[in-house]
Amino acid sequence: MSETSKATALREEAAKLDAVDELADRRAGFVLEDERGEPVVYLDGNSLGALPRTVPARVAEVVEREWGRLRIRSWTESGWWTAPERIGDRIAPLVGAAPGRIVVGDSTSVNVLKAVVAAVRMAQEDNPARTDLLVDETTFPTDGYIAASAARLTGAAVRALPAEGLPGSVGPRTAAVLVNHVDYRTGELHDLPGITAAVHEAGAYAVWDLCHSAGALPVGLDEHGVDLAVGCTYKYLNGGPGAPAYLYVRGDLQQRFDSPLPGWNSHADPFGMSPAYEPAEGAVRGRVGTPDILSMLALEEALTVWDGVDITAVRAKSLALTDFFLRCVEAYAPAGRVECVTPTEHARRGSQIALRCPDAGEVMAELVARGVVGDFRRPDVLRFGFTPLYTSFADAELAARVLGEVLADRAV
Amino acid sequence: MSETSKATALREEAAKLDAVDELADRRAGFVLEDERGEPVVYLDGNSLGALPRTVPARVAEVVEREWGRLRIRSWTESGWWTAPERIGDRIAPLVGAAPGRIVVGDSTSVNVLKAVVAAVRMAQEDNPARTDLLVDETTFPTDGYIAASAARLTGAAVRALPAEGLPGSVGPRTAAVLVNHVDYRTGELHDLPGITAAVHEAGAYAVWDLCHSAGALPVGLDEHGVDLAVGCTYKYLNGGPGAPAYLYVRGDLQQRFDSPLPGWNSHADPFGMSPAYEPAEGAVRGRVGTPDILSMLALEEALTVWDGVDITAVRAKSLALTDFFLRCVEAYAPAGRVECVTPTEHARRGSQIALRCPDAGEVMAELVARGVVGDFRRPDVLRFGFTPLYTSFADAELAARVLGEVLADRAV
Repeated sequence: MSETSKATALREEAAKLDAVDELADRRAGFVLEDERGEPVVYLDGNSLGALPRTVPARVAEVVEREWGRLRIRSWTESGWWTAPERIGDRIAPLVGAAPGRIVVGDSTSVNVLKAVVAAVRMAQEDNPARTDLLVDETTFPTDGYIAASAARLTGAAVRALPAEGLPGSVGPRTAAVLVNHVDYRTGELHDLPGITAAVHEAGAYAVWDLCHSAGALPVGLDEHGVDLAVGCTYKYLNGGPGAPAYLYVRGDLQQRFDSPLPGWNSHADPFGMSPAYEPAEGAVRGRVGTPDILSMLALEEALTVWDGVDITAVRAKSLALTDFFLRCVEAYAPAGRVECVTPTEHARRGSQIALRCPDAGEVMAELVARGVVGDFRRPDVLRFGFTPLYTSFADAELAARVLGEVLADRAV
Repeated sequence: MSETSKATALREEAAKLDAVDELADRRAGFVLEDERGEPVVYLDGNSLGALPRTVPARVAEVVEREWGRLRIRSWTESGWWTAPERIGDRIAPLVGAAPGRIVVGDSTSVNVLKAVVAAVRMAQEDNPARTDLLVDETTFPTDGYIAASAARLTGAAVRALPAEGLPGSVGPRTAAVLVNHVDYRTGELHDLPGITAAVHEAGAYAVWDLCHSAGALPVGLDEHGVDLAVGCTYKYLNGGPGAPAYLYVRGDLQQRFDSPLPGWNSHADPFGMSPAYEPAEGAVRGRVGTPDILSMLALEEALTVWDGVDITAVRAKSLALTDFFLRCVEAYAPAGRVECVTPTEHARRGSQIALRCPDAGEVMAELVARGVVGDFRRPDVLRFGFTPLYTSFADAELAARVLGEVLADRAV
């Protein structure tokens, strides 16, 4: 097949796939243009999700009416005070959690500290000999740094291992294991059910970081008995830049959740202003200080794009998108010019494709200049995130085609 | 003097004081009406500052253009990445700090953990026998809870003492002292220079909580050699509900600042994504995770109301307002009906007046219903905050007059 007819065939296929895409109507709910109103192929929703169109009006209402006119009355009248647990309950179905198990607030890093310290404390309460904290060695850096801090603060020892080696490495000295559900660089999906089961088999606690999986695929926190989990809300959940993160605590562990950040918002009677700390019941125990209302209510509004969406349909589309993108890359990229570092096996793939090429920085800059936005991770990785609520098959085809052009141009 | 002529005289005096108030022009910069457009006497800026009028347009720009149109480009093009230290530098002159010493982010509670753990670590590095952490016993609860957590995490022991007793209680075993600059209930201003000097004399570290003083009076962090300080930005700094807090680290201690929350944002090369943590230089070392941009940039805009304001003029007006309010309360309130629990001595007063009366909850509800907004702190305290940028002497007179009416009505 000639280059032109190959492209024609792939474009036609993309159009057909988009025509039968049951999530296609969601795309209109997002702003996908640039500052001149030109359309952008935005494949960086795994870094910062696009703006849902209803968010600006809601934020304006929060600022102008709730803060501006009602001021402190809004803590009760506008539901500000209960926002962290209310928004947690909105995220819950997307990650397979029952209501009352997720609380929103703070950054992911801060929540990693809460979760890991709490996990180590539970393990040491079970058995003081449990002093090892295992972390997957390709973790997003902050998880590793915070895990090391948590270990130092609790007298544990941290050890980094390949995620696939964790089940064979947990044992009677293991306190807890911290794993990224999807590797932020390669897009590899780690085996949450299997690793969690192995950790439990060894009598330890499993803490999962869902930053790169929540909103892209079913997580099944309750189903798989995950102990604690954290995640951000500004990637596939489209909550906005630096939107608050969340913390999940398994139902039967909530009474034992012992936070290193027992702020007044987690007190059983916060307005009692008692000098003695008494933790609240439930997920509220994961709260700390006054919630950042503007960011939090922007997130709440952003989550309305999920109304009526089945996360299994999201996963099906995500896999179809990434499969199709890989076929397009194979068709368009000069042979041997890029190497896919994302596993091709569905069970091991998240919702991004990472391609390695030696001049990745320059290639990505050129892609962005031509309206295809992915990102670059040092030293040599091109990342393309596929967010099924707004990425189309036409986007995938166009991105691969422009990538092929850029690679061809640079090879000359 | 009759009731009527007394009121006439106080109203006239208020008008005269407002006429010569050099900060009077700032009031127009804030929204002070309720949802029906009716004016409110808002004396709760010590809980949540009023909305500066330029904030809504700036927030809309951040949401619609920076997030909506530029998306990830805004981390560099819109200055998102450097916002925590840039906004810290805007707060710095208000609390007497040089540039590069304050970083904005996280909640006050989270910053208390950073500051107290770092202080204890420095003390123990100086001398491992320093194991005592002293806290003022009337502290805002979260400081006490977090201090107890910090002590548990570092092997220190926490002890609560009256603030005035701290200078006599510090000694060779003291690691650090955590004090609230202004007591949130009584409005008492603690002696920051004296306590800090005594703490240093004993070889320990002083951590100050500025929530109820920053923006209301000069703090002089650098001048008095304060080691570490934290504060919120949603009270006198008008940053919005749950706006991010800040952390101050004295210049010569920054190299020793050892955070319990070493998130990737505080790494010397955050985009290097190195598995090994290497802290950044300067205040940036106090950063943790991705900053909550919407709340943070709303705060940045809110801080523009301080352009050209001298904090000593703010203090002068604050004291004049609270003096005048107390005189009005004395004139209007039935004798013996309320008791002032705020020190009358200027050097010991912040920018709020706390009045004790047995039915404070009911009295405040009635005040709010009549358009005078203060707040109630259990079990029996009425709090009235005076925010010199937008509170007028007419507000103070009217609030006291309505209070007198409510108290008289309820006494019948």
